[in-house]
Amino acid sequence: MAAPKYLTGDKAGIDEFLDRFEVFLFDCDGVLWSGDHLFPRIPETIDMLRKKGKQLVFVTNNSTKSRADYKKKFDKMGISAKEEEVFGSSYSAAIYISRILRLPAPKNKVFVLGETGVEQELQSENVPYIGGTDPSYRREVENSDYTSIADESALDPDVGIVLAGLDFHPSYLKYSLAMAYLRRGAKFLATNIDSTLPNAGSLFPGAGATTAPLILASGQEPLALGKPSQAMMDAIEGKFQFDRSKACMIGDRLNTDIQFGIEGKLGGTLCVLTGVSKKEEFLAEGVAVVPGAYVDQLGDLLR
Amino acid sequence: MAAPKYLTGDKAGIDEFLDRFEVFLFDCDGVLWSGDHLFPRIPETIDMLRKKGKQLVFVTNNSTKSRADYKKKFDKMGISAKEEEVFGSSYSAAIYISRILRLPAPKNKVFVLGETGVEQELQSENVPYIGGTDPSYRREVENSDYTSIADESALDPDVGIVLAGLDFHPSYLKYSLAMAYLRRGAKFLATNIDSTLPNAGSLFPGAGATTAPLILASGQEPLALGKPSQAMMDAIEGKFQFDRSKACMIGDRLNTDIQFGIEGKLGGTLCVLTGVSKKEEFLAEGVAVVPGAYVDQLGDLLR
Repeated sequence: MAAPKYLTGDKAGIDEFLDRFEVFLFDCDGVLWSGDHLFPRIPETIDMLRKKGKQLVFVTNNSTKSRADYKKKFDKMGISAKEEEVFGSSYSAAIYISRILRLPAPKNKVFVLGETGVEQELQSENVPYIGGTDPSYRREVENSDYTSIADESALDPDVGIVLAGLDFHPSYLKYSLAMAYLRRGAKFLATNIDSTLPNAGSLFPGAGATTAPLILASGQEPLALGKPSQAMMDAIEGKFQFDRSKACMIGDRLNTDIQFGIEGKLGGTLCVLTGVSKKEEFLAEGVAVVPGAYVDQLGDLLR
Repeated sequence: MAAPKYLTGDKAGIDEFLDRFEVFLFDCDGVLWSGDHLFPRIPETIDMLRKKGKQLVFVTNNSTKSRADYKKKFDKMGISAKEEEVFGSSYSAAIYISRILRLPAPKNKVFVLGETGVEQELQSENVPYIGGTDPSYRREVENSDYTSIADESALDPDVGIVLAGLDFHPSYLKYSLAMAYLRRGAKFLATNIDSTLPNAGSLFPGAGATTAPLILASGQEPLALGKPSQAMMDAIEGKFQFDRSKACMIGDRLNTDIQFGIEGKLGGTLCVLTGVSKKEEFLAEGVAVVPGAYVDQLGDLLR
């Protein structure tokens, strides 16, 4: 495998790199911003790429926000973007459920572990759901719950899918219900299984922390519909219609973003060092996932 | 490995089995009861063993209850037991922290994920702690929390240990704080890592579901102090002083109870079929953990 090309400060290298691609897929957290902190020269870099006629797609594993929520975040950050350019893991999961899994109604109801982003995207695809942000699932488990969950009288007869995204409001009741649905035969899906969530320059538990208790307790593994799942790449290509050899994935995580681009046989991958992965992780000998190029920060593409 | 002996209905076999041992270590959930459901003839079976002069120890991985709580449960169930005969995973963890780990004060403070059982046993060993059942940790995470956790201003400078038991009140704030303590270098301990909790004839998420998000997010594995950890066996032997060859472990789980007895080189192990493990799991060819004997239910020992 060729060594990744270091592009920061390399004007000719950057020109050559940008000229190779017509489409750039961007991860957001760790690339454009970290939480509410915008990285330097991001709006200008995005504008530069638009002026060069590049097609931009913002591909995020953040399941807590819908595409509409993300558009608001771009506006707040002063980055030009259209809602249609955003492709999130909640949207990816909703599309998978409505267009690929296609369980016959009414047995297509989803038990959601997660936030409003998951709910909005399920609504946009007319997928029925329960759980999610409903505060009634945040109460304590009572003794009678054990009985009514064990005998299934507390279960919705129509739930055929458990979908887990990052849940900021975990509860033992939700986990107990989700486990019971899985034991009854529900399909187990995850928006994504990122182990960590970068924020404020540190790392917090990611969406994988929501699924981890269920994986252990049920003995079942979810189908993850965020990066690096190629189900997400297929859905993106289906929507945006591009030549993969002319597309480049830009991200901060080797085991999600860069792997996603490599397995998707994109023309290139670019790693930024403003997020999770450190350059030592891909510059070492014999490592599994190596980006085509890297920069210290995305704004370094701007000369 | 010899095939396990089936003792239900085998009067001579039961007599011979009971005569071999002076000490019986009992798992509780799945052996004596399931949740609030007492299995048949349990009080009479316990009384029979006491009349034969056997020493009884109740060894439980349930971290939510202290030894005093357990004594109350035995009383409610009508089973004769002394508080000193109970040995729980919370007590095991408290002893490990106070008598083996012995971090110098004040850096021996524990951040607790779990219920009152953990707190009571830490108190009994004079170990300082925060977290646990304190309701202030159940609130939502605010944006300012990300900053104050990332810059460590929200962290207690004295916390040197994260101890996780089964937590019926999980919160993203607790997980974020626990992860930050682990990243700062805290020791990671678990009362136990049972994947499931039997109740009402079904299975619910166990204490392992509390640690699973932290293991994934931090990349660190806890030292588990419940069964099958031999740290617990050593502590039990140290307290009760018995000849391991004359001791028998009775339990319903191959990968906790029976493994605990085998690895502890006890004279025997007895599996009951009223809990998690099914006989097919140990009667199959080439399986790793096989009990010395088994009965359909503990009450079958009573003729």
